[in-house]
Amino acid sequence: MFAAEIYRQRRLNLVRQLKGGIVLLLGNVASPFNAADNCYRFRQDSSFLYFCGLDQPGLAVILDVDSGRETLFGRRQNLDDLIWSGPQVTLQERAEKAGIARSTELSELCEILSTAVAGKREVHYLPNCRAENKIILGDLFGRSPDVISQGVSPELIKATVALRSIKSAEELTQLDEAADLGYQLHTTAMRMAQPGRYEWEIAGELEAVAARAGRMLSFPPIVTVHGEILHNHDRNSQLQQGDLLLVDAGVESTLHYASDHTRTSPVGGRFSPRQKDIYQVVLATMECARELIRPGMTYLDVHLAACRTLVEGLQSLGLMHGDAEKAVVAGAHALFMPHGLGHQLGLDVHDMESLGEDFVGYDDNIRRSSQFGLSSLRLGRELQKGFVLTVEPGIYFIPALIAQWQDEGRHADYINYAKLEKYLNFGGIRLEDDIVVTISGNRLLGRPLPLQIAAVENTLNLVDKNGQDYS
Amino acid sequence: MFAAEIYRQRRLNLVRQLKGGIVLLLGNVASPFNAADNCYRFRQDSSFLYFCGLDQPGLAVILDVDSGRETLFGRRQNLDDLIWSGPQVTLQERAEKAGIARSTELSELCEILSTAVAGKREVHYLPNCRAENKIILGDLFGRSPDVISQGVSPELIKATVALRSIKSAEELTQLDEAADLGYQLHTTAMRMAQPGRYEWEIAGELEAVAARAGRMLSFPPIVTVHGEILHNHDRNSQLQQGDLLLVDAGVESTLHYASDHTRTSPVGGRFSPRQKDIYQVVLATMECARELIRPGMTYLDVHLAACRTLVEGLQSLGLMHGDAEKAVVAGAHALFMPHGLGHQLGLDVHDMESLGEDFVGYDDNIRRSSQFGLSSLRLGRELQKGFVLTVEPGIYFIPALIAQWQDEGRHADYINYAKLEKYLNFGGIRLEDDIVVTISGNRLLGRPLPLQIAAVENTLNLVDKNGQDYS
Repeated sequence: MFAAEIYRQRRLNLVRQLKGGIVLLLGNVASPFNAADNCYRFRQDSSFLYFCGLDQPGLAVILDVDSGRETLFGRRQNLDDLIWSGPQVTLQERAEKAGIARSTELSELCEILSTAVAGKREVHYLPNCRAENKIILGDLFGRSPDVISQGVSPELIKATVALRSIKSAEELTQLDEAADLGYQLHTTAMRMAQPGRYEWEIAGELEAVAARAGRMLSFPPIVTVHGEILHNHDRNSQLQQGDLLLVDAGVESTLHYASDHTRTSPVGGRFSPRQKDIYQVVLATMECARELIRPGMTYLDVHLAACRTLVEGLQSLGLMHGDAEKAVVAGAHALFMPHGLGHQLGLDVHDMESLGEDFVGYDDNIRRSSQFGLSSLRLGRELQKGFVLTVEPGIYFIPALIAQWQDEGRHADYINYAKLEKYLNFGGIRLEDDIVVTISGNRLLGRPLPLQIAAVENTLNLVDKNGQDYS
Repeated sequence: MFAAEIYRQRRLNLVRQLKGGIVLLLGNVASPFNAADNCYRFRQDSSFLYFCGLDQPGLAVILDVDSGRETLFGRRQNLDDLIWSGPQVTLQERAEKAGIARSTELSELCEILSTAVAGKREVHYLPNCRAENKIILGDLFGRSPDVISQGVSPELIKATVALRSIKSAEELTQLDEAADLGYQLHTTAMRMAQPGRYEWEIAGELEAVAARAGRMLSFPPIVTVHGEILHNHDRNSQLQQGDLLLVDAGVESTLHYASDHTRTSPVGGRFSPRQKDIYQVVLATMECARELIRPGMTYLDVHLAACRTLVEGLQSLGLMHGDAEKAVVAGAHALFMPHGLGHQLGLDVHDMESLGEDFVGYDDNIRRSSQFGLSSLRLGRELQKGFVLTVEPGIYFIPALIAQWQDEGRHADYINYAKLEKYLNFGGIRLEDDIVVTISGNRLLGRPLPLQIAAVENTLNLVDKNGQDYS
């Protein structure tokens, strides 16, 4: 973990933004795999990690906004624990690592919260995606777990989002570390993009890269020759010469910061001319976005400008026509790219997603659109120095969606449906990089992954001939 | 999955054991990692897998005991699903794969259960370790998730345990497959048992072996030079020449049957004479158990006989004295082996653990003891042909436990505390194999792992010199 002082300062910054009451920061318990005592690898709650850094199950922290008093709650060890789990760091030692003065038994948490509620003090807590924690919160507040989300504190959410959105130098070191390992993931996948391989083999090798480094993937990887399926988690296809292999995968750093990259590779080593054409449009769209990203720009505007580049590219290939700007305003491009340009990245791959996407990506100035495509943009608000985000344009040929729009004659002014018929088996291409917003622009995180067509082909082919990675 | 007929037959065999009412088999939903949409790799509920075989989240089955009618509940796909997740097997097709005639929307489940409850029909359901399912069951039955376990059906638990305890030929094929991959796990770990390595590197490589095969480990592996800590999940130690490396690890087969093996290897390639002595006692204990395991024996008796062999071995080394049988009856050996000899193995590594260990391992004839050590024996009841179980004796030198017993003078008639002082830094040795009870004895599952001292040393040393596994 980072130095205790960093966590202490973060909590001070949090509490300063609140008017009063107490803050309950609830850590995660382990998630059962197939029995209460046989669990998935533990993943701490990201906000708990951010404010306390402690990476063990069964902890909670209370911050008293009015008195400034901080308390860590957990279980003390008994002889049975000693025999089965060995000597552990004590609860008080853990508290000190997080810069928290006081620690006590978890069983006291309920009474302290009851006293606060009885005293009509506000108890702030965050939304929680884990069912175990919903039950715990329900028990603590005497409510059903189904309605516990109604009691969350928007004030605490906003204060947390404000802090977690701006990445500090030590967080950027972690994000660079994650992105460097992301380079390994993706060059590994490129090495394996050969006819005869199965998607699941490559996905397994990505998990293996993370495991060998003692890490976890930051999300279930997408490894598919059907890139047109946006979140395809079927991995049973065998790679054929000429397929496009889309790999969207990321990994966690030592302290659980995420990477999230996408590359699309030509199975067998060479893009076809048509694949190159579409690839270049996606690449130009990414480059357009990278040029615009700087403090003061809204990500909505970056998204829209990037989409105009995408439309112009598709027009040059005869797949779209008409006024590019109007096509984007109308949402015609969403047939090809029905998702947003990117999202924040940090301790979560969709950073702070469980706190509510609109709190994270939008604000009073920029509201989420309801238009198809634009409604999937996770981040729209003004960018600030220290924001870390993904840039991930894509072009997909989704037969079911094309059929529906064509039937309805939707956006026929902008879309050349006749030409599209030849692309129904194309699949999809997405490219995704991770960047940090700097004072005057943005910087790529980690070692750059092969991106230009020649670099991708070289990586696949050099590796292919020599069995080693010279990319 | 297996053929539909197998699942249909299993459900028929289940329903036949029940007097009436309806059976709710609830599948798992995905377990969130750090957001509702970013989940751990899906693991289906094992009893749902056993009776229905369907390995997707968000399913439930109702079996009407009185009418024999079977219904699969799930969600049908919409256009949004098609875009984001691609075309899927339909709900009705899934039902057919499981031999279930009827399928309908999950949303109808609540009404069907309400009707049954209102009609005073018994609704049987199993205990569930997943918090998400506790909340779902709570909602379905209008109860708090904290008390939902009070409504489980002992009749259904007993019927399920009776069926799942006897492994059929096709299940044994799966268990052999899992054990074969377990061989790979453990020889990989042996190859890595070299000075300078870290425990976490070896654990990561075990995960990598499973991932590359498209599988999951069946439980978080124990990889430790502190084998005396029974469930040690700290993995930060660096291996030193002369250490004992204890690895307790298993992996799932294609259809989620588990392996579970333990081996203890000498870091650097050679056991010391003292390590050999203890290893031989553990090995003799395992061999004693293997000789006794057959239908009609209780596993309690096998455990006790094995413990006598263990005591005799420790006596030959001067660590215990007195009457071996009386020492075991008194529980003196539990200082060295505070756990049981083994447990059932199947779709769970501790098979059916979430149904309640006493239902699985004990019955009206054999009750669980409360004696220290023996109380941790997970399986005591009479063995039957088709039972699959682990045999896992161990000898540990646990400083905290030795100190406590010595202070109390506990079992001083049987334990040579003076000699024990020289063993306080020894660590621990455990050996574990997976077997099936056959008509006249038992058979090892999968490819035999190196077990004899010479075989273990050969595996480590052949590998060491040639960089390849000749074991």
